[in-house]
Amino acid sequence: MRVGVLTGGGDCPGLNAVIRALVRKGVQEYGHEFVGFRDGWRGPLEGHTKQLDIPAVRGILPRGGTILGSSRTNPLKMEDGVRKVKENLAKHEVDALVAIGGEDTLGVAATLADQYGVPCVGVPKTIDNDLSATDYTFGFDTAVNIATEAIDRLHTTAESHMRVLVIEVMGRHAGWIALHAGLAGGANVILIPEQRFDIDEVCGWVESRFKVRYAPIIVVAEGAMPKDGELVTKDGTLDSFGHVRLSGIGDWLAKEIEKRTGKEARTTVLGHIQRGGTPSAFDRWLATRFGLHAIDAVQDGDFGKMVALRGTDIVRVALGEATAKLKTVDPALYAEAGVFFG
Amino acid sequence: MRVGVLTGGGDCPGLNAVIRALVRKGVQEYGHEFVGFRDGWRGPLEGHTKQLDIPAVRGILPRGGTILGSSRTNPLKMEDGVRKVKENLAKHEVDALVAIGGEDTLGVAATLADQYGVPCVGVPKTIDNDLSATDYTFGFDTAVNIATEAIDRLHTTAESHMRVLVIEVMGRHAGWIALHAGLAGGANVILIPEQRFDIDEVCGWVESRFKVRYAPIIVVAEGAMPKDGELVTKDGTLDSFGHVRLSGIGDWLAKEIEKRTGKEARTTVLGHIQRGGTPSAFDRWLATRFGLHAIDAVQDGDFGKMVALRGTDIVRVALGEATAKLKTVDPALYAEAGVFFG
Amino acid sequence: MRVGVLTGGGDCPGLNAVIRALVRKGVQEYGHEFVGFRDGWRGPLEGHTKQLDIPAVRGILPRGGTILGSSRTNPLKMEDGVRKVKENLAKHEVDALVAIGGEDTLGVAATLADQYGVPCVGVPKTIDNDLSATDYTFGFDTAVNIATEAIDRLHTTAESHMRVLVIEVMGRHAGWIALHAGLAGGANVILIPEQRFDIDEVCGWVESRFKVRYAPIIVVAEGAMPKDGELVTKDGTLDSFGHVRLSGIGDWLAKEIEKRTGKEARTTVLGHIQRGGTPSAFDRWLATRFGLHAIDAVQDGDFGKMVALRGTDIVRVALGEATAKLKTVDPALYAEAGVFFG
Amino acid sequence: MRVGVLTGGGDCPGLNAVIRALVRKGVQEYGHEFVGFRDGWRGPLEGHTKQLDIPAVRGILPRGGTILGSSRTNPLKMEDGVRKVKENLAKHEVDALVAIGGEDTLGVAATLADQYGVPCVGVPKTIDNDLSATDYTFGFDTAVNIATEAIDRLHTTAESHMRVLVIEVMGRHAGWIALHAGLAGGANVILIPEQRFDIDEVCGWVESRFKVRYAPIIVVAEGAMPKDGELVTKDGTLDSFGHVRLSGIGDWLAKEIEKRTGKEARTTVLGHIQRGGTPSAFDRWLATRFGLHAIDAVQDGDFGKMVALRGTDIVRVALGEATAKLKTVDPALYAEAGVFFG
Repeated sequence: MRVGVLTGGGDCPGLNAVIRALVRKGVQEYGHEFVGFRDGWRGPLEGHTKQLDIPAVRGILPRGGTILGSSRTNPLKMEDGVRKVKENLAKHEVDALVAIGGEDTLGVAATLADQYGVPCVGVPKTIDNDLSATDYTFGFDTAVNIATEAIDRLHTTAESHMRVLVIEVMGRHAGWIALHAGLAGGANVILIPEQRFDIDEVCGWVESRFKVRYAPIIVVAEGAMPKDGELVTKDGTLDSFGHVRLSGIGDWLAKEIEKRTGKEARTTVLGHIQRGGTPSAFDRWLATRFGLHAIDAVQDGDFGKMVALRGTDIVRVALGEATAKLKTVDPALYAEAGVFFG
Repeated sequence: MRVGVLTGGGDCPGLNAVIRALVRKGVQEYGHEFVGFRDGWRGPLEGHTKQLDIPAVRGILPRGGTILGSSRTNPLKMEDGVRKVKENLAKHEVDALVAIGGEDTLGVAATLADQYGVPCVGVPKTIDNDLSATDYTFGFDTAVNIATEAIDRLHTTAESHMRVLVIEVMGRHAGWIALHAGLAGGANVILIPEQRFDIDEVCGWVESRFKVRYAPIIVVAEGAMPKDGELVTKDGTLDSFGHVRLSGIGDWLAKEIEKRTGKEARTTVLGHIQRGGTPSAFDRWLATRFGLHAIDAVQDGDFGKMVALRGTDIVRVALGEATAKLKTVDPALYAEAGVFFG
Repeated sequence: MRVGVLTGGGDCPGLNAVIRALVRKGVQEYGHEFVGFRDGWRGPLEGHTKQLDIPAVRGILPRGGTILGSSRTNPLKMEDGVRKVKENLAKHEVDALVAIGGEDTLGVAATLADQYGVPCVGVPKTIDNDLSATDYTFGFDTAVNIATEAIDRLHTTAESHMRVLVIEVMGRHAGWIALHAGLAGGANVILIPEQRFDIDEVCGWVESRFKVRYAPIIVVAEGAMPKDGELVTKDGTLDSFGHVRLSGIGDWLAKEIEKRTGKEARTTVLGHIQRGGTPSAFDRWLATRFGLHAIDAVQDGDFGKMVALRGTDIVRVALGEATAKLKTVDPALYAEAGVFFG
Repeated sequence: MRVGVLTGGGDCPGLNAVIRALVRKGVQEYGHEFVGFRDGWRGPLEGHTKQLDIPAVRGILPRGGTILGSSRTNPLKMEDGVRKVKENLAKHEVDALVAIGGEDTLGVAATLADQYGVPCVGVPKTIDNDLSATDYTFGFDTAVNIATEAIDRLHTTAESHMRVLVIEVMGRHAGWIALHAGLAGGANVILIPEQRFDIDEVCGWVESRFKVRYAPIIVVAEGAMPKDGELVTKDGTLDSFGHVRLSGIGDWLAKEIEKRTGKEARTTVLGHIQRGGTPSAFDRWLATRFGLHAIDAVQDGDFGKMVALRGTDIVRVALGEATAKLKTVDPALYAEAGVFFG
């Protein structure tokens, strides 16, 4: 059996751990051969491959990024895309394809499997943890650890200076990183995309915090937005405002708090450091197990499925179902954190 | 309502995070007052208390250990122990008691709740992750991260010297830390208490590893044992042998591998560094949520229960049930890791 | 002998290590008593003190910030400031004063010692490493480690996406953090305040880097400036431009590179996380030794001096001399790093 | 000009950083070509080489170990060793040889340069920091950071349990790692090879520590020894005693303290994790600068020299002189730390 592998979408610590587990088990237990496709779906679309065998996966477990490269190419949006993918899979005598990626990458896999009979197995990947079919995705724990460590360091300054400290973390549509890191780091305010914030309320927390003890630390997801859009921009979109589009909500918030409370505010923007570097132990464990179970599904011929974490078990779910819905932060869960605000 | 809190058993990163969450939510949302009992069950037994209010829990979230102290005192084994505990709880006008601890500490809570009507709520704690009623306990993720980072560093030496590297990690009865850290760190052999190892097989893996590539890294849980007990000691017990009792299975294994394969072997014994220091982000999140949900149970008057993690939810289970069975590594899960051996 | 201690200026990991070493050696070896003054020079100015003895310094070695608080208050600029300071020192029967701080704090100590006979000993502190009389100041190594670790993580993204990654680090007047972290992290461009950069040259490095291998990583000190001031603002100052003042040179640079090269660029702004959290081992060692030697100077009655690092030795230099000149990056040292640019 | 490079002796984080800097500057600024010799002096002895050019050094800066491999082979002790080395250097048209290593490796370089006219430049490497001609060697700061972080974690247990915690660190002949990490970590006792310890005095510190506050943490260098040799073994040597040779001084000390004080004692043996993994920022900076300056010496034809750190400068010293004397801990420096004992 010849198995193709590709990784699509943004960086995510743990991709290499999945690839290694697939190859180690596939070759050693099932006698599979592997074909690495380069740069996500562009690989099967354009026929770019890379040798993928046991020597190729040595030493990659602790390394961030992906040895196969990645892209956001979508063959479903290209003329003749599906035909080309199928031709290249046939040309490389691929009997099964493992696609590792997020909503978009797996969405392509779901369509190819369900509508075009391509034998696909999916492995979910999103640093934002916003895929609904799995308890967690790898990369998320690493990002939360990095953000938490940064918040830990900000506490020192919060304890000795009268400065509001704003830290902007990833999360365009889901606030999981902000929520987990904010709770783990002991933030005084957590703002997430799922719930528009009231800038007056935020300033209220800032002022009450100053009264009680120290300067406040505010964790804000990059996709968080104030209730009144017009506060941010005059025409209702963030994007039309040069400096806001550039600097993001963290800087906007710091400036607004300074203006309203008279307190000095400083911003830290973690940016890409949240998605780089070595994966945490949890992410390596999860990614490795995803790889081991995905190759089992391949061996079983159980296509059109994605591996997923449920509790401590790895299960298989339908690919189409897996990508149907964004998993956002439940209002009740967000409310739970509210006891620590202010 | 006045709520007593105690922490029992060994160190575990996250204890302070539980205490902080209990107090913050109890005081702010429910108007509770708190009494901290010192040093586990010794506190209510002897009436030693410590002030526990919002100022007392400031800044403790990232700190290892427990501000309440701990002990292994068991009032059920003391003459008049139960009576004394009840008297002291009455004296301090305690309406509910939250016990944070492992099998032993929670076992006392279960008995006091079920047989003596003491209004207890339990929070599970074990660095070894061996409580059956919860997917994970806090402290475990921190220990696995520390052990994984150590293995990462050993790879450098493994790549440039012909030395067998043995690393001994915690786990007397359950091999969870060895299994998770071994997988996450890319170890070549993982030995756990649940399955006696064959020293010849281990030496076989060592030799095959040298042939293929580098020197092997062996992760061994402190409670792991060879199949032939007599290999370790002449009279059948590890303990009767001075240097073995002292140095542990890691040193024994290194010596035995040296003798049998002729390869130099070195041991790292992580010891207590696995249970100290700041908790990982995951452990802080889990411990905080345990605290929030335990105080909810107190407020609901739902005694005789323990909070537990199931998937991403915090649930309540009966205290008695929670401590009934040790959660050991499933043979199938251990077998999964076997693909990486040798 | 009664010894006063104060810490002034911005946060810097290692302040508590100095305080602990002063007190441990002063009390145990010399029988000193201590008076902690709160919030820098505001303490002796307004007579705010804090108990400072061996119990007070327990456990503070690994903690960032300062248990004495800090401020930028300058008694030389206050009416009757010197008189008030002298009165309060007399009132608290202080025989010697140890001032721990940067250029400003030590400048006050120098004036008080040289012109007003106040028995001061200085301990140098600046995270920016820009004091000329000492090889290194504590806090700097910690900041460089944090920035280097961040750059390490950015490499993962640089290897898999075609994005220019800009990381802004501390350093208003001296580029030491940028230079050390840039070299240690393997950055492709390092921009420092000491040498105005040519934006065309920077874009040239960006483009040549893309041709050879990966996306470039640019480390920019917050005080770095382009050669043509008018590029940044129309009226010649950064400050007049709202979004630039807010977001800093990192964002400006990213935007400018995007505009000129057509490549997407992303910014990470580390901000205060560089000066918070636990000090590195080197900084604890240096701070501890500074404390031990400063109290020796006090005991010797050798006032008007500052402790300083020269090679591996701690020496004493005149306070006035110590703060006379900002230590900036030597052009030759900066040129050395140029081999790694592009 | 063709430049040979080799790395000898034990692992040390920073070796790859030296190699990268040599090649980057040599190729880009001076137009050198490079020949990598494998496995220390075995490479030139047996003619084993490895391609060494700019692509070969990409990405190696943060990686521990050495891409050239290492060994303890000494051509001066082999028959015809010098002749073979010279022949292989001639065969590969090597005009200069950079040897990166410790006392032994550099000793060979010194002899070859001084007595046989081989054009050698040395770069000092020892994790133990025991080379007298340089303020610091790379690898040392990394080891001290790792050991300090371990001690930090032990403090948690020391604060909540009545257990003596012994941590054994590297240092056979010099106690630099023990001294620096012990001071940085706030250890209560530091034992180094330079000064035999009195076991009664150690037990005295243990007991006084228990009285004052917490359980003590003892840092012991692997080469530390008690005053009375007969305490350790009956025949006067550690080595004749099987379990002691195996387990080391840490375990011996723990056992002895248990016996004498009745307090439970636990040992952590860091072992090889101190010399593996990614180098600290300081070590990368130092190693990079050593590389840049060593290739300058090559270009200048200044052979028989070694680069060394003096303060913040890189200087050149005679190779022979550099390896003449072991740099041990000065008694006065050790005494400085004594204020923190007990």
